[in-house]
Amino acid sequence: MKKGRLIVISGPSGVGKGTVVKALTERDPRLKLSVSATTREMRPGETDGVQYYFISHEKFEQMIAEDRFLEHARYVGNRYGTPEEPVDRMLNQGYDVLLEIEVQGGLQIMQRRPDAIPIFIAAPSFEVLGARLRGRGDTDEEKVLMRLQQARMEYLTARQYRYIVVNDRLEDAVRDVEAILRAEALKTEHQEHLLKEDD
Amino acid sequence: MKKGRLIVISGPSGVGKGTVVKALTERDPRLKLSVSATTREMRPGETDGVQYYFISHEKFEQMIAEDRFLEHARYVGNRYGTPEEPVDRMLNQGYDVLLEIEVQGGLQIMQRRPDAIPIFIAAPSFEVLGARLRGRGDTDEEKVLMRLQQARMEYLTARQYRYIVVNDRLEDAVRDVEAILRAEALKTEHQEHLLKEDD
Repeated sequence: MKKGRLIVISGPSGVGKGTVVKALTERDPRLKLSVSATTREMRPGETDGVQYYFISHEKFEQMIAEDRFLEHARYVGNRYGTPEEPVDRMLNQGYDVLLEIEVQGGLQIMQRRPDAIPIFIAAPSFEVLGARLRGRGDTDEEKVLMRLQQARMEYLTARQYRYIVVNDRLEDAVRDVEAILRAEALKTEHQEHLLKEDD
Repeated sequence: MKKGRLIVISGPSGVGKGTVVKALTERDPRLKLSVSATTREMRPGETDGVQYYFISHEKFEQMIAEDRFLEHARYVGNRYGTPEEPVDRMLNQGYDVLLEIEVQGGLQIMQRRPDAIPIFIAAPSFEVLGARLRGRGDTDEEKVLMRLQQARMEYLTARQYRYIVVNDRLEDAVRDVEAILRAEALKTEHQEHLLKEDD
């Protein structure tokens, strides 16, 4: 069985990463979404192992000590990380695995797994990003401005990603990512087996 | 106006490069096919500037001396080459330009124009390639075996191409090339303009 590929989808808050990733997995059953671990409290309607693996701070520290995260980060007092073992299990089963993670985590994974395909999702403009953040309705203006400031920092790291996809129309962005995954498989380094003599 | 891209489509004789290229240009009006120059005689039904620019040996030598070819090669006593000027004119008009050329010429272009996108078209197997060459009906068995021997040599150079597309079902091969062209445009080095502050 051919091993699957690790695909990193990053980008600023509000850019629509989650929507893009959801559409991708709905359209291609060979694409699996990785589930992160977090120390934050489970919220009503959430299920352990679906939105997140909900674990204690002690367990999280232990997993760091045992080097069991592909990446991990702090956010507003809580910790978030991608356990490596379930990802490798899916890859070994031949699934392509999508990681929807913040930019900081994306950069960690590029270091640890240089074979990953890193894709940065960008907004059409900062104006549009601001409008989307405001449209969510769950943030006050100061938080929106802080998120935009954060996005500016994240754009500075985007050059380290291999591809940049603009999420203007969702359908276009999804097709862009699909084209990237198709083209990546056609790269010469992944097609060497074709060049062997077959007689 | 954004400049177009130079796309090199190479591969052994019989692999179906011409069919792939024809389908691509029919599906996307922004794709233009480059016309080669040759010293061979015009055949009935051919038009100068359509299948080829038909030029004299003297003119061909002069164009070489003036460095006006993107690539050129000898084949069965005649010369074939891609004049650079019409290609650059189409690129400057914003068209993507397809060059359907032999492997030898493809390698010359990669040297001269490292920004070109080199794609190697491969057969599903040497058996299939042999069957296709025989199916053309215009070659005797010795010529088929010579072409297969030539194909083996060409496969040795395929590693220098950026992508390898297998032409098994035409529709798949065409979609592969379309995905490559879409993904290439999303590479970070071509998306830098998105990362500039817009306010």
